[in-house]
Amino acid sequence: MNKDYYVVIMAGGIGTRFWPMSTAACPKQFIDVMGTGKTLIQQTYSRFKDFCPAENIFVVTGQAYREKVLEQLPGIRPDRVLCEPHRKNTAPCIAYANYKIRAINPDAVVVVAPADHVVLKEDVFGQVIREAAQAASQNDWLITLGIKPSYPNTGYGYIQFDSEEVCTRFNQIKKVKLFTEKPGLEMARTFVESGEFLWNAGLFIWSLKSAMRAFKTYLPDIDELFAAGMSKFNTPEEADYIEKVYLVCKSISIDYGVMEKARNVYVIAADFGWSDVGTWGALYELVPKNEEENAIVGKNVLAYDTRGCIVNVPQDKLVVLQGLEDCIVVEHGNSLLVCKRSQEQMIRRIVDDVAKRKGEKGA
Amino acid sequence: MNKDYYVVIMAGGIGTRFWPMSTAACPKQFIDVMGTGKTLIQQTYSRFKDFCPAENIFVVTGQAYREKVLEQLPGIRPDRVLCEPHRKNTAPCIAYANYKIRAINPDAVVVVAPADHVVLKEDVFGQVIREAAQAASQNDWLITLGIKPSYPNTGYGYIQFDSEEVCTRFNQIKKVKLFTEKPGLEMARTFVESGEFLWNAGLFIWSLKSAMRAFKTYLPDIDELFAAGMSKFNTPEEADYIEKVYLVCKSISIDYGVMEKARNVYVIAADFGWSDVGTWGALYELVPKNEEENAIVGKNVLAYDTRGCIVNVPQDKLVVLQGLEDCIVVEHGNSLLVCKRSQEQMIRRIVDDVAKRKGEKGA
Repeated sequence: MNKDYYVVIMAGGIGTRFWPMSTAACPKQFIDVMGTGKTLIQQTYSRFKDFCPAENIFVVTGQAYREKVLEQLPGIRPDRVLCEPHRKNTAPCIAYANYKIRAINPDAVVVVAPADHVVLKEDVFGQVIREAAQAASQNDWLITLGIKPSYPNTGYGYIQFDSEEVCTRFNQIKKVKLFTEKPGLEMARTFVESGEFLWNAGLFIWSLKSAMRAFKTYLPDIDELFAAGMSKFNTPEEADYIEKVYLVCKSISIDYGVMEKARNVYVIAADFGWSDVGTWGALYELVPKNEEENAIVGKNVLAYDTRGCIVNVPQDKLVVLQGLEDCIVVEHGNSLLVCKRSQEQMIRRIVDDVAKRKGEKGA
Repeated sequence: MNKDYYVVIMAGGIGTRFWPMSTAACPKQFIDVMGTGKTLIQQTYSRFKDFCPAENIFVVTGQAYREKVLEQLPGIRPDRVLCEPHRKNTAPCIAYANYKIRAINPDAVVVVAPADHVVLKEDVFGQVIREAAQAASQNDWLITLGIKPSYPNTGYGYIQFDSEEVCTRFNQIKKVKLFTEKPGLEMARTFVESGEFLWNAGLFIWSLKSAMRAFKTYLPDIDELFAAGMSKFNTPEEADYIEKVYLVCKSISIDYGVMEKARNVYVIAADFGWSDVGTWGALYELVPKNEEENAIVGKNVLAYDTRGCIVNVPQDKLVVLQGLEDCIVVEHGNSLLVCKRSQEQMIRRIVDDVAKRKGEKGA
C-alpha cells in the first residue's frame, strides 16, 4: 500500500434515470442497485481498500448527502468528505479535492473515480489501477481508463487512442488522439469497427502535480479561485470560502475542460466488467439472469409466464408477476414503476411528470 | 321501517380470488374493492339502514373476524355479531341466525344477504327488498332474488322460473322451477337465450316461520342440533354449545339443502346493478373506466401507453405504469400482483404457491 496514493470518489450525482430506486433524496450511488447488499458507493469505496490507506480516500458530494456518505462508509474519516455547495460538474469537484490533498501531500498520486459505476472484475481493476498509478507517479501524464467497447453504445463518450505511438515502458498505455462526446448510432458503429476507440469510463489517474499543472493551463480561472483561498483550507473558514468559490465558479466537466485539450493524455485499454449502470437496461445487461432471462432482485418474487424482465423490489416484498415480457418492475419507498424495457427513456419524462404532480399538489 | 324486519348478513367468506387485496386475515368483505371509501360489508350494512332498525341487523362471521366487523360497523349491536366456530357453508349459518332471531321475535321476516356483493342501484334494490319482505310476510314462500343475465356467465348459479304461473297479487314474483349449479358455457348460453333463467344472487327473503319450517322438512338434522340448545341461546353457555353443534353439523349450502328441494320457492327478477365481484375481471366490468379503458383506484397512478387495466393500489402510493395492456395491477399490504386479466384464474394457483412458500419458510 503506497502512502502517496489517494482516491477521490465523486459522489455528487443526482441522476433520475433509476427512478424510483434513485431519487433526488437518495441518488443511485447510495443504492444497492445490484442487490448484493452493498450500495454502489460502498462497492466503489471497498474497491480501493487495498490501494491506499483509508485516510487517503476522499469523497466529494453535496451537503445534502454528507450524512448518507458517513452512514454508508463507516470507515471514512469525516474530514475526508468534501461537500460542494452547488453542482458545478466534475472539474471544480476535482480542483477542490486537489487543493485539499495538496495541503496534506504534494507528492500525491490521485485516482479520481465516479461513485456510481459497477466493476465486476475487481482483481483486474486493481491491477490496472496500480499500473496506472505507477505510470502516473513517473510521468507527467493524465491517464484515463478506456473500456474495450462490446457494442456501439450511444450513451457513452469515446476515447480514440493512437495505435502508432507506443509507450515502451508501459505497453498497455496508449497515447490519446481524441476525446469525443456521445456519438450517434452510425458514428458509434464506425468507432467500434475501427478498433481504435474505447468507452470513456470517467476514471482518471495522475500525479497531483500533473493535475494541478493541467488546471493552471486549461482552466486557469477555476484554479485561481481555489488557489486564492489556500490559507483557508482546513480552517473554520473553509466552508464559507468554498461557498463563495462555487457561486462564481463555472460549471464544466473535466473531460471538456482538460482532457480534450491537454496533449499529455494517455489511456489504458482495459476490460474489468465495467458499466456506468446509467439505466435499467444497462443494469439488466450486467446482472445474472435466470432461465427465463429475468434478472430479479428481491427474495419473494414469483414469476409466471414472465420473460426478459428486470425486477428490483424490497427483499421482504411479496411480488407476483404473470404474463410480463421485457419489463422493468421496480419498487422503492412508496413508488412503483412497471415499464417496458424498450421504453426506459420514458423514465425521464415520467420523473418530470411526477415532480409536476407533486408541485401541483403542494400548490 | 318495519320492526318485524330482520337482516342476516353472511360474512364468513375467506375468498382468495381477490388476492392480494383479500387474504385469509382480511377477506374481500372487509375490503374497499371499489375504492369508494367503504368496504363491501359497510356497503351491505348501509344498504339496509332504512329497511329495519339497526338492532335487527345480524352479522354471521368467523371468530377471527369479529373485531373487524365491530370495527367496520360501529352501528351494530355487539350481540348481533354471531361467530361460527367452523365454516360449514350457508345452511348452518342461517339456521343459527334463525334461532337467535326467534328468541327475540318469532314473527320476524328475514332477509339473508351475502356481505361481499355489490349493488349499484341502491334505490331499486331497496324497492325490491321491501316488496319481497311484504310478500314473505303474507305467504309461506321462500323468496330469492334473481338477476336478469346480461351474458352467459359460467361462474354463477342459475334459477329457472315458471313463466306460466303468475302470482296475481305480486306480479313481479315468479314461481321457481329449478335451481342449478354453475353451468358450462354452452348450457349457460342456452339458459340466457331461453329468457327463463336468472342469475342466483344468493339473497333470500322469508318469514322466520317459513324458513324454520323448511329447515325442519329438508334439513331436519341441522334443525335438531340448534333446536336442542334453544335454552342456551343468549346465555353464557351459548358459545360452548355452538362449538359442539358446529363440530358435528354437516357442511351444506342453503341452495342445495333447501332451495333446490322446497316446493314453495319464488323469485323476483330484478336489475339493481348486482355483482358478486367474484374476481378482478368481474370488478373491472363493474367499475367506471377512463378513456383508455383503465379502471384505476389510487390517487397517484400515472399510466402511459396503458389500456384495459384494472389498478387498485393504496391512495398514497405513487404508481407509474407504461406499456401495459389488459392487466391487473394490485398492491395491498406487503404484496404486489401484476397479472394478465385473461389469466386471472391463475390467482388461485398463485395463492397456493404463496402459501406453500410461506410454509417452507416457516419450516
